[in-house]
Parts: sequence; structure tokens; C-alpha cells
Amino acid sequence: MRVTITGAAGFLGRKVAGRLALEGKLGAREITAMTLFDLVPPKAPEGARFPVTCLAGDIADPAHTARLAERDTGVVFHLAAVVSAQAEADFDLGWRVNLDGTRAVLEACRRAGSRPRVVFTSSVASFSGGQQAVVGDTTRPVPGNSYGAQKAAGELLVHDYSRKGFIDGVSMRLPTVVVRPGRPNRAASSFASSILREPFLGEEAALPVPEDFALWIASPRAATDWLIHAAAMDTRALGLDRGINPPGLTVTVREMLEVLRSVGGHDAMRLISRVDDPEVAAIVGTWPARFDHARALALGFRTHEGLEAVVRAFLEDDLAETRAMRG
Amino acid sequence: MRVTITGAAGFLGRKVAGRLALEGKLGAREITAMTLFDLVPPKAPEGARFPVTCLAGDIADPAHTARLAERDTGVVFHLAAVVSAQAEADFDLGWRVNLDGTRAVLEACRRAGSRPRVVFTSSVASFSGGQQAVVGDTTRPVPGNSYGAQKAAGELLVHDYSRKGFIDGVSMRLPTVVVRPGRPNRAASSFASSILREPFLGEEAALPVPEDFALWIASPRAATDWLIHAAAMDTRALGLDRGINPPGLTVTVREMLEVLRSVGGHDAMRLISRVDDPEVAAIVGTWPARFDHARALALGFRTHEGLEAVVRAFLEDDLAETRAMRG
Ligand SMILES: NC(=O)c1ccc[n+]([C@@H]2O[C@H](COP(=O)([O-])OP(=O)(O)OC[C@H]3O[C@@H](n4cnc5c(N)ncnc54)[C@H](O)[C@@H]3O)[C@@H](O)[C@H]2O)c1
Ligand SMILES: NC(=O)c1ccc[n+]([C@@H]2O[C@H](COP(=O)([O-])OP(=O)(O)OC[C@H]3O[C@@H](n4cnc5c(N)ncnc54)[C@H](O)[C@@H]3O)[C@@H](O)[C@H]2O)c1
Repeated sequence: MRVTITGAAGFLGRKVAGRLALEGKLGAREITAMTLFDLVPPKAPEGARFPVTCLAGDIADPAHTARLAERDTGVVFHLAAVVSAQAEADFDLGWRVNLDGTRAVLEACRRAGSRPRVVFTSSVASFSGGQQAVVGDTTRPVPGNSYGAQKAAGELLVHDYSRKGFIDGVSMRLPTVVVRPGRPNRAASSFASSILREPFLGEEAALPVPEDFALWIASPRAATDWLIHAAAMDTRALGLDRGINPPGLTVTVREMLEVLRSVGGHDAMRLISRVDDPEVAAIVGTWPARFDHARALALGFRTHEGLEAVVRAFLEDDLAETRAMRG
Repeated sequence: MRVTITGAAGFLGRKVAGRLALEGKLGAREITAMTLFDLVPPKAPEGARFPVTCLAGDIADPAHTARLAERDTGVVFHLAAVVSAQAEADFDLGWRVNLDGTRAVLEACRRAGSRPRVVFTSSVASFSGGQQAVVGDTTRPVPGNSYGAQKAAGELLVHDYSRKGFIDGVSMRLPTVVVRPGRPNRAASSFASSILREPFLGEEAALPVPEDFALWIASPRAATDWLIHAAAMDTRALGLDRGINPPGLTVTVREMLEVLRSVGGHDAMRLISRVDDPEVAAIVGTWPARFDHARALALGFRTHEGLEAVVRAFLEDDLAETRAMRG
């Protein structure tokens, strides 16, 4: 079968493509071809033993999405999105890419006629309630930002296209993925990765929230494992509800700084400074940090490793590439 | 101020327009003009002491929605929609009118620049869980039909446009409105009105669900009162959450038939017959019947009258018109 990844030039898109190239299959099904799609032409992953088609296009432009899914398409990872701070800054762009774009991707899947598994990346940002909230599987999304509203609306599309049998969809409400390699980005949660990445590059990082601030996070390894499990699992166990809160890790900034000190030492710690950023604090302040993961665990999504393992995996998997990227 | 009603040729649109013509104001604010919008040109309500503009157009066609909101528009009742069974039968039409159309209405409001109060009619159909479920204010919508998914997505738009300050929106999740005058329509819940309306016209009515089947209903009077309260209330009390489960009435089909007998006698009862309709049963079977209304009551939405009062109000308000309509 063919596997498509939208947003394939992005952080998680590259991780997923790399893993699939390595493994050559998804669950029991062999991968025979791959389509990678992004605004800029994505690079084919190293070592793929199947043909990879790299397409540049805009998911929000229906003229570009026709080739996203074909008759042999078995799985679509729909990861392309405008991230939180950018969607908040540009209301029209956010709704256009994150809602209209998602709909265009689902329409392409419907037209392909192969009823592909679609793995959609929703987000913790679809919830609000902040530090006080405990989110369960039946909690209503009352988003505190446009990005979260767009993701919650995208879930409803995935839900309804699945119910109708046009696709076989799963929406993963990903936690903030930490440590994100590369440069700080326009996600409001960018600081959460910066404080565990920049010091290892000898760079300073700003902390816009207090030390007792709690976050719900996932490592790139865990997020990738979950996305791949969502693509391979038996969806009959989901019933009508196609959305999943995966088993993320709840950590405080203090715990993150303790791990930074234990792995990076005092030199690393000295590079962190507390800097107020009301705009970022307002967005992340509404995101809940505590989740009930019972359903995800019952559905076979793996539990999360500890925070020190997350930081060591960053050094192992992504530090060299991040350093190279910065020249 | 100007008041706009979309879907103004429909059942609730005509009720709301009639009430506003009678009262001449909304809360403390005087109505100085009214715009009525529907696919077919709506009729101006009798007795209005303000100018009424009647427009024919499609809310899903942006070329038609430009005149929906103007600089003096203070309130928009957005009621235009494709109803449940029709949206289930025509997937593309449902999403086009109920999602794209709602977005076009909100865009027209945003462009008008008057930050109007927008009262959006969402629905019990956005929830599932059926007879077992008890729905609270924080319950996630997991719709069992496309109409419900479209309404839940519309709520997210109303929510985000409000948070951004483009509009001042309130989404009312209306129960099934009973007794609906006129003819049976393409809502899956049409039977709930038929069994309390047809016998009073000497006509037979089919019952597609068993007698112990429970429904969450509202009278046209209660629904109209709630919509008008939603248009006049102080929305600061809502906080981030713009959606409301109003204080509907939970009734079983058996209770409905008892009231039919007590008001209409045995002749009325004889006109009801149990007829299986798997398509209708599948849609309404997912709608919950039990709700927690604490938040709505705290926000000043009035409690519901009893079922016998509902039937007597139908005879008083709507029987003559329904009879005339049928010729
Ligand atoms: N990384 C996180 O912390 C996190 C958390 C929750 C959810 N998510 C979601 O997971 C997905 C992947 O996240 P990521 O961190 O890899 O994001 P990313 O920003 O690194 O990658 C997203 C990719 O989408 C592409 N894209 C944007 N607009 C596009 C358009 N109109 N057409 C085609 N491509 C477009 C971008 O070019 C980019 O390569 C996104 O949907 C994101 O919202 C991420
Ligand atoms: N009546 C109920 O039981 C009930 C329950 C829950 C929610 N609602 C919602 O309340 C609102 C009003 O309900 P109603 O019972 O008056 O419905 P209705 O069907 O009587 O009226 C809806 C009106 O919308 C108009 N319309 C449809 N598509 C349109 C388009 N593309 N452009 C312009 N107008 C269009 C129709 O012509 C119709 O006059 C609807 O949004 C409905 O979904 C109703």
C-alpha cells in the first residue's frame, strides 16, 4: 500500500517518514510507495526501499490536493498545519489551512475511494481550563485560541467522514512535543523545548512561565510511536469516538530544569532566564496539564518514558542535526 | 438597532420575527429595522412598527451574504440550516450550508464591524450516547449524524469569532421543538411533533420508536423565549464557553401519548400507529434525552412548562394556521 504524509517537511513528518523507511511496513501491511507533501518539496527519507514521490503544494488549494491520495493509498498521516502562535496572529490563514486544508485532504481521500486510514494530529490546545483542569475522554473542547478551535473542528470532520465510511480516521490530540529539534518556532509552546535544547548548544533560552507551571508533553519518540500505532490499530475498538488523548507526561517547569541540571550541569542552567511574555503566557496558560489516559492505554497506546530519558534521546537523536542546521 | 434573522421563512424564524414585531425591542434596546433572509423571500411579520427588508439568498453563497449585516446591526439570529435527515442524505449540501454557510454569516457580521450579538441554533443532535446518556455543560459532542457534527463545528466558529471580538456570540443547543406546526418535515425527529399534531387535524401519525423512548424537547414558546434571552443577556457571564444547554423537558413517548389522550380523547389516540423506520430510529436513537441544565438556569434561561401546556399552546397558537396551510 501507499502511505501519504502531509506536512512531511516538518518536525513530526520527517520523524514518521524516517521510521517508515526504516521499517518498510505499517503493522502487518507492507509499504510499497510513499507520497510526501508540503509547501516546500519534502526530502525523501534515507534508506527507503520503496519509491517516494515528493510533492510541493498547499493543502488549502484544492487544485494541489488531487494527488494526495490514490487508489492504492492505505494510510494518510495528515500533519500539515499552521501552528498556534501563527494561527492566533493570522486568523484567516489559520482557518484556511487548518480547517479548509484538512477538509481538502479528507475530500482527496474520499475521492480516491480506497477508504484510507487517516491519522489526524489534533492538539492539547483544543482544551482550556489551564492548570486547574483535569481532561477526560469525554471533556468538551472549549479552545482558548484559534489553533485549538481549528483542530477541534478538524476532528469533527475526521469523525463524520469516518462515520460515513469515506475514510477510517483517528484523531490524536498530541501534547506539546518536547524536545523539538532545530530552531525556536512560532508555536506558543516553543519555550518548553527551548529550555531543554538551547543550553546544549551553548545558547540562552527564555522562560515565560513560573517554575511551578505544569505542562502535558510527549517526546518525539512517543509521539511517533503513537502516530504509527494509530495508523495500524484496529479502529473497531473506537466505536463512534475517533479522538484519543494519548498517554502524555505531566511535568512542571521545575522538573524540566532539574533534568537540565542533572544532564547538562550548572553551565546549562545558567543559560536559562525568566523573561515575561504575556502573549505566550496567555495562550499556554489556558492549556490543561493533567489528563486521564485510561482509554488510550486500553487501546494499546504505549506509556510514556520519564523526562530524563526524553532529554537523553534528544541528545542521541537530534542534537547533531540541530547543530549542523545552525551551521 | 437592526435585527437580522437568517432562515426567517422557517418555523422558528417566523416565531422570533413575530415576537420582535410585537415587542418592538430586545431587552432594553429598541428595534429600528429588521432584515429577514431565507432561500425564498420571507414575509414581513404583521404589526411591525419598523422597516423590514426581506432578502432571498443562499447563506452558503458569499455573494448573497453581504447584505446580512450592516453598520447598525446589533443582533443576528442565525437560524438558516439544512435539517438532520436531509443533511444525512446529502453530505455535501449539509456541510456546505451548515458549516460554510454559518462561516459566511459570521464573516458578514465581522465585516459589518458592529460586533453584533449572534444567536446560533445548535442542537441536541450534536451529542450522542442515546437513552443511557446524561449530558452536562462540559460533555464532548460526539455526533451520531452529519447535522450534529456540522452544528458542533458551527459552535466552534461562533466561539472563536467571539473570543476574537469579531462578534458577541451565543450558541443555543436546542432540544427537538415540539409541537412543530405545518407538515411533517425532513428532520429525523419529525415524528415527535406528528404524534401531537396530526391527530388534531384528523390525520394518522406513525410512531417509529417504542413507548418508553425518552426525548429532550422544547415548546416553540420556550425555544423562542430562550433565543430572545440569548440575544439580550449579558454575555460576560459566559466566560470563554459560548454554548448553552437550555432547560428542556425530558419526556417519554408514553407521556406524550397520555397527554394526547387527555387533551384529544380516544379518537385522537386511534390515529397513532407503530411503524418501524430503521433510518429515523438510527438517527434519533443516538440523541441523549437527559441533560443537566444548571448553567442555563444560572444564566437566566426560563424553566420549561409541562407537557399538557405545550399541547394546549399548540392548539392556541398554531392549529388554525396549520389547518389553513393544508387547505
Ligand atoms: N509539535 C507539537 O508540539 C505538536 C503538538 C500538538 C499537535 N501538533 C500537530 O502535529 C502536526 C505536526 O507538527 P510539527 O511539529 O511537525 O509541525 P511543523 O510546523 O514542524 O510541520 C508542519 C508542516 O506543515 C507544513 N504546512 C503548513 N501549511 C501548509 C499548507 N498550507 N500546505 C501544505 N503544508 C503546509 C509546513 O510547511 C510544515 O512543514 C501539526 O498538525 C501540529 O499542529 C504538534
Ligand atoms: N425545530 C427544531 O426541532 C430544532 C431543534 C434543534 C435545532 N434547530 C435549529 O434551529 C434552526 C431553526 O429551525 P427551524 O425548525 O425553524 O428550521 P426550518 O427548516 O423550519 O427553517 C430553516 C430555514 O432555513 C432556510 N435555509 C435552508 N438552507 C438555506 C440556505 N442555504 N440559505 C438561506 N436559508 C436557508 C430554509 O429555507 C428554512 O426556511 C435551525 O438552525 C435548526 O437546525 C431546530
